[in-house]
Amino acid sequence: MKFNYNFKNIKESYLFAEVANRTETYRKANPDKKILKLGIGDVTLPLAPSVIEALHGAVDDMSRQQTFKGYGPYEGYDFLRESIREYYRSNGVELAMEEIFVSDGAKSDLGNILDIFAKENTVLVPDPVYPVYVDTNEMAGRKVIYADATDENGFLPAPDYKIDADVIYICSPNNPTGAAYTKAQLKEWVDYANAKGAVILYDAAYECFITDENLARSVFQIDGAETCAIEFCSFSKTAGFTGTRCGYTIVPKCLEHEGFNANKMWLRRQATKFNGVPYIVQKGAAAVFSERGQSEIRKNLAYYKRNAELIANSMDTLGIRYTGGKNSPYIWLKCPDGFKSWEFFDYLLSGAQVVGTPGAGFGRNGEGFFRLTAFGSEETTREAVFRIENLLKK
Amino acid sequence: MKFNYNFKNIKESYLFAEVANRTETYRKANPDKKILKLGIGDVTLPLAPSVIEALHGAVDDMSRQQTFKGYGPYEGYDFLRESIREYYRSNGVELAMEEIFVSDGAKSDLGNILDIFAKENTVLVPDPVYPVYVDTNEMAGRKVIYADATDENGFLPAPDYKIDADVIYICSPNNPTGAAYTKAQLKEWVDYANAKGAVILYDAAYECFITDENLARSVFQIDGAETCAIEFCSFSKTAGFTGTRCGYTIVPKCLEHEGFNANKMWLRRQATKFNGVPYIVQKGAAAVFSERGQSEIRKNLAYYKRNAELIANSMDTLGIRYTGGKNSPYIWLKCPDGFKSWEFFDYLLSGAQVVGTPGAGFGRNGEGFFRLTAFGSEETTREAVFRIENLLKK
Repeated sequence: MKFNYNFKNIKESYLFAEVANRTETYRKANPDKKILKLGIGDVTLPLAPSVIEALHGAVDDMSRQQTFKGYGPYEGYDFLRESIREYYRSNGVELAMEEIFVSDGAKSDLGNILDIFAKENTVLVPDPVYPVYVDTNEMAGRKVIYADATDENGFLPAPDYKIDADVIYICSPNNPTGAAYTKAQLKEWVDYANAKGAVILYDAAYECFITDENLARSVFQIDGAETCAIEFCSFSKTAGFTGTRCGYTIVPKCLEHEGFNANKMWLRRQATKFNGVPYIVQKGAAAVFSERGQSEIRKNLAYYKRNAELIANSMDTLGIRYTGGKNSPYIWLKCPDGFKSWEFFDYLLSGAQVVGTPGAGFGRNGEGFFRLTAFGSEETTREAVFRIENLLKK
Repeated sequence: MKFNYNFKNIKESYLFAEVANRTETYRKANPDKKILKLGIGDVTLPLAPSVIEALHGAVDDMSRQQTFKGYGPYEGYDFLRESIREYYRSNGVELAMEEIFVSDGAKSDLGNILDIFAKENTVLVPDPVYPVYVDTNEMAGRKVIYADATDENGFLPAPDYKIDADVIYICSPNNPTGAAYTKAQLKEWVDYANAKGAVILYDAAYECFITDENLARSVFQIDGAETCAIEFCSFSKTAGFTGTRCGYTIVPKCLEHEGFNANKMWLRRQATKFNGVPYIVQKGAAAVFSERGQSEIRKNLAYYKRNAELIANSMDTLGIRYTGGKNSPYIWLKCPDGFKSWEFFDYLLSGAQVVGTPGAGFGRNGEGFFRLTAFGSEETTREAVFRIENLLKK
């Protein structure tokens, strides 16, 4: 038996695991210090009351033989897929029901979708990048090339027709940089993908933070995307589902190539390697789309946006350059005083007991940058900002 | 961009989807007829009261900031993994905590585990077989060979040292045949795997139906399994979690080969492509192991076992040969009157409005056989047995 030797190409430790390890080591050595975490993009507000109600109702359904649910449809229950379709419609995007697949989160499907693509594809990812895009492809032995996202292009690389890419990852609003593509910029990528016969894997996990009308909330708002894009979205950030696990993946019916149909292949993949998302969770997710759910969710998003503003304002005060903070829960800052990313991580942890995420963990171009997130409690965020200002003003 | 051309090797339609399609076609043409489903292995009893209570409690946890849970550990919460460890201990198996991974079901992990193995492995599966083992490997382009499970060997093939297999699937009690390996028989497979440097992927999804002490409840009850086996188990059948989605995978720390460690690779895979099982669901699953939970679960299992007995007794009455029914929720019967599997499916559907699963859908050796499951309600099972007897006595 042979293990998958491609695992040799990926680092043993996953970025956030390394952040957790260093934090834990510091905590053990300094048990009296209170550590404030603005590192991983994890939410802190409880689930909305309408979601909680729906979850309780679904648990009750599971307690009675008449309403009990066994295996559900691989692609998710219609009651949830209908709501997702309505949501897209409100953003000007018409989807067929068969194009909507309920998932246990954007991360899972961003990795799993690779099952429908051959090993012999060149994968283009931005640098810096959410590590999952790179690691999942390296595990499968695919060639990964990078599009530089830098200060110069506002961390929003444009397509380069001299480069032949087959599978292109775009995350907008971006993790980790917080930068977001306008519809016009995204159209350039869609045109490139159609011209090259490439596919765009579009990570829209942070679309709910967009307020600017010029920015794309979905790749399918762009003409031509239906023949070249798959979109991944999540309730994690929209509705605080990081620990409740639900998302959705849109695979257009007209994404076809050499006799293969992406939509049919994905259904086949899911029917074979997945058994759907818990009924209880899908009921909770559907409540997010109710009128009351939407109003509750907007309050939560406003709360995180205020946190982002607090951090952004503090960076302004300190004269530190950053992207994000608007239309995004992330603040991507240039480390002050020539600090490298992990140096700044240790400096912030030991000096202010604030945990962020080192930009270098997201790629070569991330070196010298640092990511803070708006997902902490307001209290944590205020205290962290206060400590950071004290430390860096010195 | 190239799609995964290996999808050409797998049939477009998944077995249970085809069963569902034919059933739906019949239902539409005969809207007045009541169809009884003993096809897919889906449970019908509601979740146990202790599980329902735990689920409600967990939903409440998610409603308050102090008890809210965001991202959980990739490998599952300790409260659940501790309970799983205790459960194994009660079966005489000592596990380290790091060897226990909570999953969203045995099916998902049986497919996903392949990520840690190279494409260049020869996969040995029994024939007939749960289609997922074959389809997931064909999707990945692996060579699949078969071990004949037939009437002659009691549907329990023994290892053949003339054959070099790298990855071996064993499901015991077996789906679809209901046959189960004794500890002595399983020891032969463990010895074979260790001798060949192969790995056994052991599907223990039906272990809870075992009452006979000579049968293995876990592959880790067999000496030497810890260097050659990975085990997959599920709450689906134990506790009616088919629509609630939770299982667990045991990856021993000493399963190593050429510098690779299966346990570390699997953790890396899960950290990269999975974000854990919903906190709410894990709380429900943990309640299964409480004293009250166990007593409730045993009642449910006894209910399904009575159904199995009803079906088995009916086969005895009709003089139809079968395996399973004891230590298993499946009855695997020889189609009477020389019927082929799909012919018998149509005959039973049109003549008795009973849906079963055609043995041919599970492999070449399944032709001429048919699977019935004990997971229906008692009422459905009694009625189905009554109708089958009426139809076949004629």
